[in-house]
Amino acid sequence: MEFKINNDYFNKAISEVSKAVSSRTTLPILTGIKITADTEGLTLIGSNSDIVIERNLPSSSDGENMLEVFKKGSVVISAKYLSEITKKLPGDIYLKANENQSVVIQSDEIVTKLNGLNAEEYPSLPEVHLSNNYKMNSDDLIDMIKQTVFAASKSETRPVLTGVNFSIEESVLTCVATNSNRLALKKYQVETNLSGSFIVPGSSLIEFMRLFASYTTEIDIYATETNIVFKSNTISLYSRLIEGVYPNVSGLIPEQSSTVITLDTIQLLKGIDRASLFASEWRNNNISLQVTDQSRIKIYSKASEMGQIEETQYIKNISGDAELNITLDGNFMMDALKAIKEDEVKLCFNGSMRPILVLPVRNDFQLQLISPVRSY
Amino acid sequence: MEFKINNDYFNKAISEVSKAVSSRTTLPILTGIKITADTEGLTLIGSNSDIVIERNLPSSSDGENMLEVFKKGSVVISAKYLSEITKKLPGDIYLKANENQSVVIQSDEIVTKLNGLNAEEYPSLPEVHLSNNYKMNSDDLIDMIKQTVFAASKSETRPVLTGVNFSIEESVLTCVATNSNRLALKKYQVETNLSGSFIVPGSSLIEFMRLFASYTTEIDIYATETNIVFKSNTISLYSRLIEGVYPNVSGLIPEQSSTVITLDTIQLLKGIDRASLFASEWRNNNISLQVTDQSRIKIYSKASEMGQIEETQYIKNISGDAELNITLDGNFMMDALKAIKEDEVKLCFNGSMRPILVLPVRNDFQLQLISPVRSY
Repeated sequence: MEFKINNDYFNKAISEVSKAVSSRTTLPILTGIKITADTEGLTLIGSNSDIVIERNLPSSSDGENMLEVFKKGSVVISAKYLSEITKKLPGDIYLKANENQSVVIQSDEIVTKLNGLNAEEYPSLPEVHLSNNYKMNSDDLIDMIKQTVFAASKSETRPVLTGVNFSIEESVLTCVATNSNRLALKKYQVETNLSGSFIVPGSSLIEFMRLFASYTTEIDIYATETNIVFKSNTISLYSRLIEGVYPNVSGLIPEQSSTVITLDTIQLLKGIDRASLFASEWRNNNISLQVTDQSRIKIYSKASEMGQIEETQYIKNISGDAELNITLDGNFMMDALKAIKEDEVKLCFNGSMRPILVLPVRNDFQLQLISPVRSY
Repeated sequence: MEFKINNDYFNKAISEVSKAVSSRTTLPILTGIKITADTEGLTLIGSNSDIVIERNLPSSSDGENMLEVFKKGSVVISAKYLSEITKKLPGDIYLKANENQSVVIQSDEIVTKLNGLNAEEYPSLPEVHLSNNYKMNSDDLIDMIKQTVFAASKSETRPVLTGVNFSIEESVLTCVATNSNRLALKKYQVETNLSGSFIVPGSSLIEFMRLFASYTTEIDIYATETNIVFKSNTISLYSRLIEGVYPNVSGLIPEQSSTVITLDTIQLLKGIDRASLFASEWRNNNISLQVTDQSRIKIYSKASEMGQIEETQYIKNISGDAELNITLDGNFMMDALKAIKEDEVKLCFNGSMRPILVLPVRNDFQLQLISPVRSY
């Protein structure tokens, strides 16, 4: 294998696939990046036990010639050393690997020799059927993930809850995540005849957001029994799926509410943030909300040793019972409010012991639930 | 105590004195900031066992009225809660403390109550004689610290080496730091009749640099047997001194060299950085320099398992023996080069077993020494 490549072009791709590479793996080959050169360009692959990132580098990009392949072939090179050294090279990079996996990387007067690994030992990619797919814009998919994934569980006690459940029915994709104490749900209209559901690890979705943050592109989504692939023209992210049955959450969402109030989203977020002053004193970050009349809500928090903080905010709209006192985890409420893009937010209560429904005022494709905390 | 103060003005001062406050202290009073209000303005004090930061806030700043004191007094308030809450308050801050150290902090509709501590229990500041002083510009002092402190020892085995030795003789201030394997020395002309020396903890000097990074001001330096004070108009930093006798380093500096070469500072730094690729494979970051002829130096590093890297750079000037091979710690060399502000650097060798002298080409007020590593 032998090629010459533009420095920045190579570096960006290395840093993208490196995101899938962990230095702590029992399989030495997985600490490397698999580079394959052929007539079409280069392919870089990095992977761990959860995800695989594949990056295609065509010979030219934006009409500019970026890469010249002199000799086809493939090799696996330590991701750590490859990314460290190529970042520090001043100009175009010339890379050559011989049959013994001995790699030479050269730029100007700088010559690096690295011992590579045999590409044939690199695990092959999961197989997917390229028919069962639907398309989404990467920005829309990032939005869906951003508005749900934070609510997934961080604890492995119930593995299915560490993922986001994707389900498709009648051309609507629904993403749901919950840790049993809070829930986030977001819907999106897609063009497909498919139906079904699968649970994607939260960590894979966070990697997806990072990887596609700087691209706006069409994504093809393919799923099998065990894997999902998010595929654009030049980048593919493969992830394992979580086995198991996702709980049916539709029964949890209250259909009626005894109190519904509308507040300014940003003001409420700032108020909850301020009231979180004593968060470190509690196991949960206990914040209380008190509606005392038709026009004002009090946000407060007490830590007897330290002190207390309280403020009042104006209610924009209220219906139902104007008397309420409820305590909740301020961090859950802040996460929920950050996921809402509208200026105004609707909080729907059913007394102080039942979950709070948090909704954007004008968008019925998104909802969140937060269980109250028993306050003593 | 009762006052009203501009939000940003108060916040900046709180964040400055907070730098001296540690949340991990056995003395609860030291987790707080001491606030004193009198007719001249506010004084904020934060401290730990090593340093004290005192900040004076006059009633007006840059001709603008920033502060109104309604009632004199003083109180100690948790640095953590004070800085967290004041950062999040929307407008001017009104603060009131009664005789029971109960503190109310208010801004718009937001009311925080904190339990303060008795200011009389706060330890008093170290005493200094305001006569024995000399003056320096803060930028010059920061330069001196930046160019020496990195060479101080991180290990407490010889406490004096964890500090920077300040010595004054015949109107020249000399700062020296060494960890026995490398040494940095910088001189500066000051106007004073004083002479003597003292060892300032490296950590205090790093705090000094952070604190004065955004100010260019005249600093008065006072030292006693046990303490040093760096004092500007509005901020003072007190530090303990390290007891003990600093080693005499003048004998370590070679007077003659068998090889002297001049190189481009930035190019050399980049070359050493690249050659540090295998640093994690070594206990030291072993880099070798090889002069083979009058015009070129080879920079290289080998890690038998992983590979090797080498490059050549052009020598701008050479005198003495043009044959040399020496191995050194690349991190020490990079630190040394970063401390040199000139385009060109002079490396003076006395064979492969003696320390390398690193000098800026045109400034004889700065020098550095690096011991070679025995290479196998």
